[in-house]
Amino acid sequence: MKKAVVLLSGGMDSCVTARYAQEAGFEVYGLSIRYGQKHEVEVDAAESVAEFLRIPLYRKFLGVSDLLKSALIANSGEELPTNRTFEEMQASGVAPSYVPARNTILLAVAGGYADSLGAEAVFYGAHREDHVGYPDCRPEYFTAMSTALQLGTKHKVRVEAPFIFDTKDKIVKAGYTLGAPLWLTHSCYQGKQPACGGRKRGVCRRCLN
Amino acid sequence: MKKAVVLLSGGMDSCVTARYAQEAGFEVYGLSIRYGQKHEVEVDAAESVAEFLRIPLYRKFLGVSDLLKSALIANSGEELPTNRTFEEMQASGVAPSYVPARNTILLAVAGGYADSLGAEAVFYGAHREDHVGYPDCRPEYFTAMSTALQLGTKHKVRVEAPFIFDTKDKIVKAGYTLGAPLWLTHSCYQGKQPACGGRKRGVCRRCLN
Repeated sequence: MKKAVVLLSGGMDSCVTARYAQEAGFEVYGLSIRYGQKHEVEVDAAESVAEFLRIPLYRKFLGVSDLLKSALIANSGEELPTNRTFEEMQASGVAPSYVPARNTILLAVAGGYADSLGAEAVFYGAHREDHVGYPDCRPEYFTAMSTALQLGTKHKVRVEAPFIFDTKDKIVKAGYTLGAPLWLTHSCYQGKQPACGGRKRGVCRRCLN
Repeated sequence: MKKAVVLLSGGMDSCVTARYAQEAGFEVYGLSIRYGQKHEVEVDAAESVAEFLRIPLYRKFLGVSDLLKSALIANSGEELPTNRTFEEMQASGVAPSYVPARNTILLAVAGGYADSLGAEAVFYGAHREDHVGYPDCRPEYFTAMSTALQLGTKHKVRVEAPFIFDTKDKIVKAGYTLGAPLWLTHSCYQGKQPACGGRKRGVCRRCLN
């Protein structure tokens, strides 16, 4: 059976992506990476999602927060601004919660794990609502990163981001269709429970949108 | 002054690369990443090189060895085979000391550090003698990884591998020309001091070549 690693954050997008990969015929290996986020509740959600989907979950702490400057990193001392406008985000180039090279680091480690397992792909739950503010969430980035990992690994591991052109609404719909356990997910950057964002169809929307 | 991060392993190639970057007009920030190698003596050499070149060195431990299968990782229990032939290496696709996605992980973390510093490039001391056996040491890999990092970071960080088409001999020559402290470096995968490989112009050659 073909294998894939799915990066499970504990949020909605990665939960639906994991179900999508299962439905596409992959034996799924979950990987949950903490890199110094402000809250730990996300990783507990990842554990619940993995258990429901009956996939093994590797929980990994990666101590890189001291190297990276971002409001999302717990030890940065900055408060996360919640009312950032679309225009402000465009002017600064990146969102206040942008973590330098975050997705490249996550995909690199997931790629190494996949190569060790003999898996052919890493699935990542990226979507179109992050295209502004997060350079490492854009389609052209994932294409380039997929090429780099394929060239740089023994098993030619590729990156798949099946929802990269979809909105959150469409991911919710896909989640319902696939039977993904959305009620177990957690999608708030502030780590609040229940999530602080406006609610729509029972699923939290990003604080920063 | 333009800034660059240089991945300093403690070996000869990265030492010469750091001097090259200084000579090219960069304010250099050294980054030394341990990922569970069999020996620690390399990192001490990186410290000496950084001190000589008067560049700051960030020493970082990245606990990913449990995720990655390789003879190079200290806890794998395997001995490093030293008489592997070129033909055997070609047949298996990768060298016994290949670490899954190692360079992608190193460059991703270095890219995040560079983006945090506002640096424009990450320098890496790759060379042509690793093109066979290490898929993540080939020119096409570095080109792809550079594209991914440029697209995925705020400061469009690129990867530079100035010796990618050169042999070890040429790097030694460049090192002498640039005044790089070759005598402080350590280049043996087995961690032996003095290095176990055949010696040429005072610098150790790879055990596996």
